[in-house]
Parts: sequence; C-alpha cells; structure tokens
Amino acid sequence: MIRHADKPVVMILAGHDPSGGAGLVADAEAVRGCGGWPVTVPTAMTVQSTREVASVEPCSGDFIRRAARVLFDDFRIAAIKVGLIPNLDVLEAVIDVARMSPGTPLIVDPVIRSGGGAELSTPGLLEPIRHRLFPLVDILTPNRHELARLTSLTEVDDVSRVVEVMSLGCAAVLVTGTDPLDDESTTGNVVHTLHTPELNRQWQWPRLPAHYHGSGCTLASALATRLAAGEGLATACAQAQRFTWDTLDNGLALGQGQYLPDRVWRAPDFDATLE
Amino acid sequence: MIRHADKPVVMILAGHDPSGGAGLVADAEAVRGCGGWPVTVPTAMTVQSTREVASVEPCSGDFIRRAARVLFDDFRIAAIKVGLIPNLDVLEAVIDVARMSPGTPLIVDPVIRSGGGAELSTPGLLEPIRHRLFPLVDILTPNRHELARLTSLTEVDDVSRVVEVMSLGCAAVLVTGTDPLDDESTTGNVVHTLHTPELNRQWQWPRLPAHYHGSGCTLASALATRLAAGEGLATACAQAQRFTWDTLDNGLALGQGQYLPDRVWRAPDFDATLE
Repeated sequence: MIRHADKPVVMILAGHDPSGGAGLVADAEAVRGCGGWPVTVPTAMTVQSTREVASVEPCSGDFIRRAARVLFDDFRIAAIKVGLIPNLDVLEAVIDVARMSPGTPLIVDPVIRSGGGAELSTPGLLEPIRHRLFPLVDILTPNRHELARLTSLTEVDDVSRVVEVMSLGCAAVLVTGTDPLDDESTTGNVVHTLHTPELNRQWQWPRLPAHYHGSGCTLASALATRLAAGEGLATACAQAQRFTWDTLDNGLALGQGQYLPDRVWRAPDFDATLE
Repeated sequence: MIRHADKPVVMILAGHDPSGGAGLVADAEAVRGCGGWPVTVPTAMTVQSTREVASVEPCSGDFIRRAARVLFDDFRIAAIKVGLIPNLDVLEAVIDVARMSPGTPLIVDPVIRSGGGAELSTPGLLEPIRHRLFPLVDILTPNRHELARLTSLTEVDDVSRVVEVMSLGCAAVLVTGTDPLDDESTTGNVVHTLHTPELNRQWQWPRLPAHYHGSGCTLASALATRLAAGEGLATACAQAQRFTWDTLDNGLALGQGQYLPDRVWRAPDFDATLE
C-alpha cells in the first residue's frame, strides 16, 4: 500500500543536538508526531548533553542554500520552521531559503540561549534578525526571555515588547510563559499568549514539575505542522500546545540532566512469537 | 509523569539525509518506532533528494569523538549503529568511538553507494574498513551488492563472501536480498539470511512493488534497538525485518523519486474541539 502525499511536508532549518532532546531530530519527531513529514537542513552541529552545550559549529550558508533548493525541487513544502541561527552567514542563507518559497508559512523559534544558559549565537546577530528576518515571519514563538532580548531596553512589559516585534514585521507572536523573568515567582499555571493584529488569545496549562530539553523546539515544530495541515492560526497554536504539554507530561529521564520530551509515544507493536 | 530509563538508548553514527528517507533522521525514527531513544552523531552532511545524492560533505573526526564522548558521559548507551563512513578521518573516529564502550553491541550497515547509485565514500576506504573496523563488528548488515564489494574478487557466491567477512572479524552477518546482482531476475520472495558461527537462518518476505529510500538504514537501526532491548540475535533480526517490511508496506510517495518508509505510523490523536 503506497500512500500518496497525504502528509504535509515541513522544512526544518535547525541546529543538530546529539541528545535528541532538542534541535533538528526533536523537530523531526514533533513533525511526525503531529502527522507531517519533515525535511531537515542543519544550520549548525553542536556537541551537547542533557546538561550543557559544549560547542556550536555553524554549517555554511552555501550548504544550507543548496540543500534547501534540492528539497524545494523534490517536495511540496507546506511550512518552514526555523530554529537556531548561529551566525550572520547562516542568517543570510535562512533569509534566502524563505524567499525561495514566498507564501509558505514561516515559523521562527528565536533560539538565543540553551536551556542551560549557554549563548548559542554570535554577538551582534539580534539586530539583523530583527530588521531582516522579522519582516518575513508569519509567527514568532519566543519565550519571555527571548522576547525581552529581542526588543529594545525601553520596553518594560510583554505587551509593549510584542507590539515592537510586530512593528518590525512579524505577523503574529506566540509568547510562551513557562519560565519567569528574574523578579517573578514560578507558582500557578503556565500562560501562553497569542498576539495578531486581529486577536489576542491566552491559554493556561498546569505547571509540570521538571525541566525539559527541547520544549520550545517541540512547540514550534508542532505549530508548523498544524499550519502546514491547513489549520487556522489560533487552532494550530492550541493543538501545538496540547501536543507539547503531552510530550512533557510523558517526559523521559534518560540522561543526567534535563528531561526529554516524548514526541512519539506509540508503543511498539511486536509479535512476540516472531523469531 | 516522568518515566525513568525505560527505553534502551542507541547511539547512531550516520550521514544526514535532508529528505528524511535515509540517514540520521531515518535511523532516529526507526529507533523510536522500535521502542528506543536515539542519540545521534553525524558523520557527514549530504545534499540529496528522493532522486539523487548531489554531494557528501564529511564531518570531522574530531567533532565525532567529542560529540560521542559527551553522550557516553550522559547516557547509558546500549547499542551503537554505524551507517555512512565517508572517509578515513571519519573511519578512524568511528573506531575510536566503538572502543570508548567495549562490550556494547556494534551494528554496522556498510553504506557504500546510495540507492540511486552514487558512490558515497572515498576510494581506498574498503581495505581499512575490512581490516580495522570488521574486527570490532558484532553484526554487519550488507545488501548483496555491498557484500560483493566488501570481499575479494575471487569469492563467487554469497556464502563464500560471508565466510570471508567473518574471517576478517565480523561476529555475524545479516545479508539482505532485496536487490538482485547483475545476472539475476527479481521474481519471487525477498530472502534475507543470518550467518553466525553457531547458526544460519533464512527469512522470506513478499516482494513489494516500489523502490524505497532508506530501507537498509531502517533495518540496521531497528536491529540495533532490539539488540539494545536485550533480544537475542535471531529474534532481533526477525523483529527488525518485520518492522522494516511494515514501514515499506506503508511507504509514502511524498517526493519525486523513491518512496519513503513510514517508521512512525501512529495516527495523531488531536482533539478537534480544542482551539
């Protein structure tokens, strides 16, 4: 039985995380878990564990352009999801890739620091991201720390920051509220908020008891897949949050550090009599 | 609910294929589909589609060693699966990685040519693979073309070739028989054969009607996962073949070329009322 083109194809541009918690493999799993097919272009190699990022080794912009061009010629790409952008060479390639397929939804997860606190991009990259990438973005998915880093220092609350990001060209922003800013407590539910020119929506989720490696990647890739499947923006945001929360609630403690989201939790269906 | 260490962790050393049909992402999917958790170290980047391999760009041996060392320190690795080895620098790193964890089952899929016929490794690599890697291999999973390439020209049948490979140090060999050699027809069932010093086993599978991108990767990674889960060699070979056949029987025609194995066929379970 060959099944023809019944899965939306999502292009992933992301760093590779060997632990599988985050990055390109995690994105691919999230796309599969949400009913799509991932095609994946690495933006960087990393050496990392569930505890820390030891190094980030950027891929070349030239490689990224060539890999993406071949994929556009082969597949019908229904959404593009961007994760780690380690330097200006890669940023320029990502912009070129987005322009190869105008009209395809562009979902950008602005990965700036690892969960463990390591800086993942070269200094000076935030300004070209703001002024050259944001005008192409259909939805940005920052956490509150990333939102604060991506906006000017004069903005003092999340809503003002979102207004600034949208004034730079992002069509919509989904702000995840798992982690508090410095002066806040972590009690109560987690609140995620969607902002578009037409609507603002808010969702609340029970706070989970652990720290996870790759929750942001999972959410953005799930969102990209549901948009690729044709869902409306608010529904896709809701479904992606539900999916992500479930992957965290089923998180796995396989390494020494952060827990790993379980994005493909189908139990294997082996025939015990087969040998 | 945090689930502790209930999944065997498999280390994948493989080339990255952006199409997702083969390579590192395919291996990761197969590990998940068979009940394990993959940690993945790229051996090469490639530019490719479901039709052809446009380029192979090796990773550095130094990167591979560092990435693997961090993973061994973080996870309990229960099996190591090796795919594409593009050059001597990577081969030496793969040998060093295998020696970092003596006693861990080492499954080697000797990827030499792509399904489309492109050579994927540098010339001259077969001899050091035979003499330096084979002595470390617990099970080699060549197709019949690869088996012929990996043995001396004087061997004229598969059994003689297997004997030669085992005399070089491979503890076991699973030969996949999907593709005929030059002078043979493609009628009848597909026959895969397992050879060890103690036993020989043979399995027959109904021939499927298409060409697939990544069937060998899927089989070797499924086998690694079942060995990591503690299954005996013959049972693990049988379960891996069953899994692989199912992924091909559910193959997807999403690109212009070869079909894509569906290794994660859990239907997404979305709540249509959520928005």
